[in-house]
Amino acid sequence: MARINENYFNLQGNYLFAEIGKRVERFKAAHPDADVIKLGIGDVTRPLTPAVIASMHTAVDEMGEASSFRGYGPEQGYPFLREKIADVKYTRRGAAVDKDEIFISDGSKCDTGNILEIFGTDNKIAITDPVYPVYVDTNVMSGRSGPYKDGKYENITYIPCTIENNFVPELPKDKVDIIYLCYPNNPTGMVLNKSQLKKWVDYARENKAIILFDAAYEAYVREDDIPHTIYEIPGADEVAIEFNSFSKSAAFTGTRCAYTLIPKKVMAYSSSGEAHPLHPLWNRRHTTKFNGVSYIVQRAAEAALSEEGLKQTGEIIDYYMANAEIIKEGLKSVGIQAFGGVNSPYIWLKTPNGMTSWQFFDKLLNDVSIAGTPGAGFGRSGEGYFRLTAFGSRENTYTAVDRIKNKLKLK
Amino acid sequence: MARINENYFNLQGNYLFAEIGKRVERFKAAHPDADVIKLGIGDVTRPLTPAVIASMHTAVDEMGEASSFRGYGPEQGYPFLREKIADVKYTRRGAAVDKDEIFISDGSKCDTGNILEIFGTDNKIAITDPVYPVYVDTNVMSGRSGPYKDGKYENITYIPCTIENNFVPELPKDKVDIIYLCYPNNPTGMVLNKSQLKKWVDYARENKAIILFDAAYEAYVREDDIPHTIYEIPGADEVAIEFNSFSKSAAFTGTRCAYTLIPKKVMAYSSSGEAHPLHPLWNRRHTTKFNGVSYIVQRAAEAALSEEGLKQTGEIIDYYMANAEIIKEGLKSVGIQAFGGVNSPYIWLKTPNGMTSWQFFDKLLNDVSIAGTPGAGFGRSGEGYFRLTAFGSRENTYTAVDRIKNKLKLK
Repeated sequence: MARINENYFNLQGNYLFAEIGKRVERFKAAHPDADVIKLGIGDVTRPLTPAVIASMHTAVDEMGEASSFRGYGPEQGYPFLREKIADVKYTRRGAAVDKDEIFISDGSKCDTGNILEIFGTDNKIAITDPVYPVYVDTNVMSGRSGPYKDGKYENITYIPCTIENNFVPELPKDKVDIIYLCYPNNPTGMVLNKSQLKKWVDYARENKAIILFDAAYEAYVREDDIPHTIYEIPGADEVAIEFNSFSKSAAFTGTRCAYTLIPKKVMAYSSSGEAHPLHPLWNRRHTTKFNGVSYIVQRAAEAALSEEGLKQTGEIIDYYMANAEIIKEGLKSVGIQAFGGVNSPYIWLKTPNGMTSWQFFDKLLNDVSIAGTPGAGFGRSGEGYFRLTAFGSRENTYTAVDRIKNKLKLK
Repeated sequence: MARINENYFNLQGNYLFAEIGKRVERFKAAHPDADVIKLGIGDVTRPLTPAVIASMHTAVDEMGEASSFRGYGPEQGYPFLREKIADVKYTRRGAAVDKDEIFISDGSKCDTGNILEIFGTDNKIAITDPVYPVYVDTNVMSGRSGPYKDGKYENITYIPCTIENNFVPELPKDKVDIIYLCYPNNPTGMVLNKSQLKKWVDYARENKAIILFDAAYEAYVREDDIPHTIYEIPGADEVAIEFNSFSKSAAFTGTRCAYTLIPKKVMAYSSSGEAHPLHPLWNRRHTTKFNGVSYIVQRAAEAALSEEGLKQTGEIIDYYMANAEIIKEGLKSVGIQAFGGVNSPYIWLKTPNGMTSWQFFDKLLNDVSIAGTPGAGFGRSGEGYFRLTAFGSRENTYTAVDRIKNKLKLK
């Protein structure tokens, strides 16, 4: 008799964005004339850049000729792309990494989930709260969370990030083994400066813990003292695995390319306390359960990192960041407290008048036809907060802010 | 202290194709003038077809314009592709499936590995032997195999497929819960007819077992009584999950698109014996840990299933199958027993003169500069066999056969 993985029974409710989608659909059905502006899901709207498009056309043509056709590529990714990433994203920032430490994949969502496979199920997991739900759900599915009780999973350590601590996570009091950090943060849009991040690297080194560092929004960093990669912090290459993606930096959400960096010095331990490098473990996982990213997509990613490509994507990021400023100013003008939006495309607002996140969601949708993301969907400490994103068009952003200023009934 | 997944300690040796690669490189270094023909790894050589290329160019252009740009798509795949697959691959063959039962992914290697996540770790696994190593290794990594002893994993049931039973697997004597079947078979190239496959479906229904059916080579089926999909067998939609891919049918090994079909009627059981449909479990896994296949690649896959696309890929398959016949006849002419190659691009030969698989590998490489795949790499029952593939060019295939006929020293 085939048995199911009963850890799935511990999963709570629907996936956040599915529930948002349902409520928006219901609203649209009831108000067919409403022009709903979606500032909820973190999806980009600007198209792929000319450098990327040109490179993909060339690659498509290569795939149509026997002489230049590519079949299976290296599971870890083509050297041309691994080298380009090592250079542009690390070496130029003073973080020396070897291209062999970079694994190309089709998405950071996959990577941050799949990475758990190389770890034992008995690790103590810590997450910041609020948090990207995938970190939690993948731990539930793999049996690391324990049961759900009073809004928390018993075996997960939650580290609150709220107005009270200016969204800076404090080191955990109990010992933890694997720590998820995402900076610039999704959903709060807040960042850690170098000395703040260094505390976590030091904690991990002292406790032989691993930091899973999600740098998906790195391209949005504007301020000087904010690290683009955790490897700007000395010693991080002994304790941190970093995830990054072309989704938010180069409009690849529908094109799919990402990468995971596992320095060869990063160790985890067997039950007898023996140190083992994680790089060969992940290499084994990656080559056994993955067959590489589409050649055409890897050429597209390479083009996004060319000088021309970087200039073009830089312009898109400027565009979104101007949106972020417009939204933040608009919120402040009606007396709503707003955070983030400086080194990140996300604006995290405190719901006015003590509303819950979902109450504010419904209010925003009903009053001004704007769909955002309820903070409570990201964890207990997200209750009373709400996320807006800067990924809309300029026109929609202006319209949304105009509606908030003139039609949102806050009394 | 972060702990590793110690199940990885149970993994045996190198991944097969890595070892082959190493030996070929060593040979090339020692014989720089040798023209090595690779008939080993199952990679295609014919390029993408004109219909696919045209469709990709169009999709690339769409991605370059804000008005037609696509960000995140449905994790399960775009309806246009799911509908096309349901129609072409199932409905037309009399196997009624709903498009919602189809999940688009970037590869069957990923899917056949990841599917284990929705099952408990206490299931008893059965594989045919020889077998695609990924089935075994992913069970080892996830802790289902038990330790390795005398060439076998203790908790895996091996079902030998050899000359003695004409490569037709017999039902296991002990009860098993999850059964991997791959037909047309990799590596043997042999098939099951409908009544042979029906025995397995009946076994699964009687024992509440699940069949993981890998149909990656389905497009090569030529003979009438050989099923293209397991859902041609009555009742299979209650017990079987099917995997298929565009890799071998449409030259997508470097383009990456596949699909998994989980009928809504397929059930597995909780520890209390309660039946649970697997479709929502996989849907949850897929939406939480995967973000969909590149839009451009999905358009390419759709084009491969258009009338024009099918005609063009049909010609490629004819090309490879003519190669298969040339290889098989060549082997027979020098007295080597050869199997498969009729409904499959793989030819499975019995090594002559009692050579081991790796001895024959080295002999073939040294005598005639041909790289094949040692049967022992696919499991104990593959020892004394050897795999050649029909994926080379016609010219290389003729040259290879010519060398085998005239230069291979069998005495």
